[in-house]
Amino acid sequence: MDNNSLPPSNTHVLDTLNEVLKQRRHSAAENSYVASLHHKGLNKILEKIGEEATETVLAAKDAEHGGEAQRQAVICETADLWFHSLVMLSHLGMDHQSVLDELAKRVGISGHEEKAARKP
Amino acid sequence: MDNNSLPPSNTHVLDTLNEVLKQRRHSAAENSYVASLHHKGLNKILEKIGEEATETVLAAKDAEHGGEAQRQAVICETADLWFHSLVMLSHLGMDHQSVLDELAKRVGISGHEEKAARKP
Amino acid sequence: MDNNSLPPSNTHVLDTLNEVLKQRRHSAAENSYVASLHHKGLNKILEKIGEEATETVLAAKDAEHGGEAQRQAVICETADLWFHSLVMLSHLGMDHQSVLDELAKRVGISGHEEKAARKP
Amino acid sequence: MDNNSLPPSNTHVLDTLNEVLKQRRHSAAENSYVASLHHKGLNKILEKIGEEATETVLAAKDAEHGGEAQRQAVICETADLWFHSLVMLSHLGMDHQSVLDELAKRVGISGHEEKAARKP
Repeated sequence: MDNNSLPPSNTHVLDTLNEVLKQRRHSAAENSYVASLHHKGLNKILEKIGEEATETVLAAKDAEHGGEAQRQAVICETADLWFHSLVMLSHLGMDHQSVLDELAKRVGISGHEEKAARKP
Repeated sequence: MDNNSLPPSNTHVLDTLNEVLKQRRHSAAENSYVASLHHKGLNKILEKIGEEATETVLAAKDAEHGGEAQRQAVICETADLWFHSLVMLSHLGMDHQSVLDELAKRVGISGHEEKAARKP
Repeated sequence: MDNNSLPPSNTHVLDTLNEVLKQRRHSAAENSYVASLHHKGLNKILEKIGEEATETVLAAKDAEHGGEAQRQAVICETADLWFHSLVMLSHLGMDHQSVLDELAKRVGISGHEEKAARKP
Repeated sequence: MDNNSLPPSNTHVLDTLNEVLKQRRHSAAENSYVASLHHKGLNKILEKIGEEATETVLAAKDAEHGGEAQRQAVICETADLWFHSLVMLSHLGMDHQSVLDELAKRVGISGHEEKAARKP
């Protein structure tokens, strides 16, 4: 992926990724994997979530008694799973912040307050 | 969940959640959902990832032509999916930071640098 | 499950199961697992397919280097997966015969002809 | 698939398919999809089960309010799901008969007796 116009820092990687996903959504499908997923539609994006969930499960089973390569595979598959979750949210006009807010609620902190506190 | 000993701010919700998951891992299984998952073992955690992935897919299908309640369900199911991914990483001795680093690499920024930039 | 009114033989187990599923669909939900699934609706049935698929995957991974108990678990989880597929087909007004016809087509035989050939 | 050496009738499509899968397992991977799956190994076969389960779920959601094409898609995806389950069983040295026996037990008939009853 190119990153010409990304904010350099003090934002979280998920915020940055969110910006990238918004930009990519309207790229030409032949130039961008993200644009091609949106173009193929929601079912294709959800198929990828199912696929990546299964690959994460398989990688975790192999990591249980595996070495460093197996552990690295868990990271990559989980990143794929989260990435395609973010594409799904973007396709439906939502983003990661609502998910983080929901997770924050569950541990008793406000995601919005937390986000504000991170700002310079 | 209780949050007695959590850092108040300037960390990201995933960092906070990571601390909570580490603390909970060694709680009594009867007092903590997270501890009970670890106690039941990796297969149970991975079953939950499969379940939550399917529930995310179903919620997204219903949100496609649905209203606010259906959209909120997508947020909750995605939060469940990410939450159980974090428990899996914790079970295997890994955490969200490696996944964010991997996602950052894909958009051309360094997650570690980014994390440093966020610190006060 | 009770089997008071089942045809005794010369039909295939999937035919028999299909009859049972049709009878159960309209039982009282509190007396029949199948009726309770139909009552909860398509999403609940599809959640079960997702769950059983993940459990089949996990059982197969454990059977790869496991013993007889692990192999038996693969059988049970696959039976669960097929069972809930049959409930889904029944919920949508379809049955196993169309799936067998489709499989037969792929191996170059006609499922309907084959079924006729099996009849006494 | 070619079907040169298949028994013509009076067996069930799953028995026939089982024979085909056994023959194909040892074909050259470049000539047979089944052989190529076995060659790639258990994880690849299990990934397909995860994929086909998700595609079955999506097809069923679309069939709920869809027409004939959507209903046909449910049949095809379920056939794909069962097909890859059979490949998994074959890879682990098991077959459909154990699954049918397990299903038969659940409806109170003996699968083996039933199979015997079907024979000419």
